[in-house]
Amino acid sequence: MEKLTFDRHTSAQFNAELEGARKHLMEMGGLVEQQIDVAFRSLMSVDTDLAAKAIKMDKDVNKMELMIDKETTHILAKRNPAASDLRFIISVTKTVNDLERMGDEAAKIAKQAIELSDSGSGPQGFVELRHIGEKVRQMVHMSLDAFARLDADAALSVMHQDEAVDLEYGTAIRTLVTKMMEDPRTISRALNVMWALRSLERIGDHARNVAESVIYLVKGKDVRHKKLDKITEQLKKLD
Amino acid sequence: MEKLTFDRHTSAQFNAELEGARKHLMEMGGLVEQQIDVAFRSLMSVDTDLAAKAIKMDKDVNKMELMIDKETTHILAKRNPAASDLRFIISVTKTVNDLERMGDEAAKIAKQAIELSDSGSGPQGFVELRHIGEKVRQMVHMSLDAFARLDADAALSVMHQDEAVDLEYGTAIRTLVTKMMEDPRTISRALNVMWALRSLERIGDHARNVAESVIYLVKGKDVRHKKLDKITEQLKKLD
Repeated sequence: MEKLTFDRHTSAQFNAELEGARKHLMEMGGLVEQQIDVAFRSLMSVDTDLAAKAIKMDKDVNKMELMIDKETTHILAKRNPAASDLRFIISVTKTVNDLERMGDEAAKIAKQAIELSDSGSGPQGFVELRHIGEKVRQMVHMSLDAFARLDADAALSVMHQDEAVDLEYGTAIRTLVTKMMEDPRTISRALNVMWALRSLERIGDHARNVAESVIYLVKGKDVRHKKLDKITEQLKKLD
Repeated sequence: MEKLTFDRHTSAQFNAELEGARKHLMEMGGLVEQQIDVAFRSLMSVDTDLAAKAIKMDKDVNKMELMIDKETTHILAKRNPAASDLRFIISVTKTVNDLERMGDEAAKIAKQAIELSDSGSGPQGFVELRHIGEKVRQMVHMSLDAFARLDADAALSVMHQDEAVDLEYGTAIRTLVTKMMEDPRTISRALNVMWALRSLERIGDHARNVAESVIYLVKGKDVRHKKLDKITEQLKKLD
């Protein structure tokens, strides 16, 4: 397969446009990582100022989505990208979409922090939250890093982590339901934690989608809706 | 703006490819509508056979996603579409993504039906469910119809309906929380209904996204993340 570089076109303008899209995608990724961090901290410390900040950051994330989609549409219209350039544009478009949805979920987490604050309580005692939160943030970071370094192995590792997080999420939800039944006074608070967990789990799913886009970009294989062991096998054959 | 037709290219092959993508998108839309219908009925009647059917249909939806994405990638690589052809390809790609996610949510609704059945209960007494379910199904149908007829007004109407559904969803969730607190024996059942409501609300969001893609396709305007009154104003100016 042809090598992925951004400086092999005769048109310097084309090279610059591809590099521009890449740079803006990474900026958007950094912003979303930051937003998730702020939202998660707002939840753990029930800090409404931080929560308001995370919700406000979502507007900047949305703006970047529109801007990058405009850039990639321009490249499609004017440069007729083919092969790895086309895969790059498709991967950027899909990843922008996933990042925007991560931003939506981060804003939802911040809203749960505000609701917890309104009811004068916090997520104390819900130990699962911190653990899953840390894992999901790692996944997001690793998926973006895999995109930056065109690293299909790192992307595959993110997909494995997503399966682990999904299992832990299921356990955490069951624990919460038991707690609610044992002590109905916790219902409202437990629901806030539950919605926040749900958003974290969805962010993990989007990180997995980013990882799938990285594999498509680097290996030229569409690995969506496939079992992980099949994907691993398929990628080994390509090496 | 140039007219949207599929028979104006000198290449008969290109015409056929565009028409093929349109036809497959509509087929996928029909399948997802059917899947949502089956999932919703499985929930209302706590019918595990129907639920299993809805979950199985998700595999076909996923297959269509991969197939149509392949078709559009081929068109991008070989035909260098521009102007309305490019907008068409971008709209199809985005809509395929939204349809696939609707399918995921439909499968999640079916899973709640199975959990309700396992616990020997049903969604009786949760009147909000039927109402929101009907509205969301109408939205999905109308958004696909708007795509088929290139009808920006119908698309705008779907966006209005989504705002109404979001409000009703908020009210329904608050009612459910009150019920859970009043009678903790309903907690488990109420949570199943809550997750199903959440999935319905998400399906509504995706129908709104499809509507936004229709407006982009027909009017050439990216109306994402904009307020509805601003969009209405902007579209009026274009007429």
